[in-house]
Amino acid sequence: MTRAPHTAQPVFVLVRPQMGENIGAAARGMWNFGLERMRVVSPRDGWPNERAVALASGAGRLLDHAGLYGDLPAAIADCTYVFATTARSRGITVPILTPERAMAQARAILVNGGRVAVLFGPERSGLDNADIARANAVISVPVNPDFPSLNLAQCVLLCAYEFRRLADTTPPEVLDMAGTDFANLAEITALGDHLEEKLEQAGFFFPADKAQRMKRNLRQIWSRLPLTQADVRTLHGAFRQIARWAETKRADE
Amino acid sequence: MTRAPHTAQPVFVLVRPQMGENIGAAARGMWNFGLERMRVVSPRDGWPNERAVALASGAGRLLDHAGLYGDLPAAIADCTYVFATTARSRGITVPILTPERAMAQARAILVNGGRVAVLFGPERSGLDNADIARANAVISVPVNPDFPSLNLAQCVLLCAYEFRRLADTTPPEVLDMAGTDFANLAEITALGDHLEEKLEQAGFFFPADKAQRMKRNLRQIWSRLPLTQADVRTLHGAFRQIARWAETKRADE
Repeated sequence: MTRAPHTAQPVFVLVRPQMGENIGAAARGMWNFGLERMRVVSPRDGWPNERAVALASGAGRLLDHAGLYGDLPAAIADCTYVFATTARSRGITVPILTPERAMAQARAILVNGGRVAVLFGPERSGLDNADIARANAVISVPVNPDFPSLNLAQCVLLCAYEFRRLADTTPPEVLDMAGTDFANLAEITALGDHLEEKLEQAGFFFPADKAQRMKRNLRQIWSRLPLTQADVRTLHGAFRQIARWAETKRADE
Repeated sequence: MTRAPHTAQPVFVLVRPQMGENIGAAARGMWNFGLERMRVVSPRDGWPNERAVALASGAGRLLDHAGLYGDLPAAIADCTYVFATTARSRGITVPILTPERAMAQARAILVNGGRVAVLFGPERSGLDNADIARANAVISVPVNPDFPSLNLAQCVLLCAYEFRRLADTTPPEVLDMAGTDFANLAEITALGDHLEEKLEQAGFFFPADKAQRMKRNLRQIWSRLPLTQADVRTLHGAFRQIARWAETKRADE
């Protein structure tokens, strides 16, 4: 994941957060995905908060630079679009978005020069209706209806993760070649020849009328496996050693 | 989010997990997204684990039903495809997938009758190379290179979230109408007429040569806003009351 420019980020606002542990964990969740703009509104235990700093550990810098506000309007005054995270419907007319859709919208707003805030409520009760009334839209994480409660840090983590995922240039799948290359068809064929030769000696292709099909099935195993040159060398060595051992045993008899 | 059938799920395997708090939190993270198949390999503090049960809280059922194994091979013996979560490259040839891609593959494998395991390592050191050598592929969460450490519960949460997200039928955006409907154009026009009438009385459209453009700008505000019938009623009431108040004041003068 490449480092994102500071300005093209949403600001995450913790509204009346309660426990320092959760604030610290929220900072970690943000910084795990390169988000660093935190604001805190009326934290229950004051500010700075030692427990938060302790739990934030390597993400402590976010707390050092977090904006501290006495109320929510002050914390979002400079923002042009506000998302409020909540679990339950509030009986107000408002768009309800998945984190994925919300962060895609956030990105579009940021690209166009807007300033985005995402609100997270106090651990016990969540955002109240007065808070949500100040938001343009609500984010609701699609959770198990039988167990819907996400804590503050988890909610922050998921939103931060989604924000990054949408712009992340990490390929979905990369093959770590660990210093080797894939074997080519000549090498695969030679491996197939080697095993076939040893198995022939060992009397494996029996009875004769099944021999051709057995050989073909074996060959096809090597075709299906994404063998590397290192794999091929290893397997050659294994077949040779087994044959050597068999010849030694036969010599002993 | 609809309830998923039990069988079409990956099994999450905690390999040599250390602290009960983390095991409990992992259970919560799984059950938040409807995943309930947990296995535990050689937990450091034995099993069952009181701290795990306490932290799992509403997700305790997962611990009750978790399979307990003495080693990793036993825990994955019945699986046909194994993902190992890890932060760092291990110098072996293996596909490295984002959680998104891995869970998409997991789903495809499950749909085709395969059995999928996702491995999570001990909190301090993660999975070792012997563990990873038993996996078909590695999952690496695309984190901030300056702060890459995710804890066990966070990693479990993200994988569980991704597994559900890909199949979730929750619409990305839903508008909570809260018992009202959108106002139609006749209602919007009537609102525009009402405000224009009151502003005309108040002498707002001045000077005369700018009046038409000002009126048009105002109308266009109402066009851009997704007003509901409830909104329109509220605004009508607001304009009426302001006008009534102005007339009262003028009467006083």
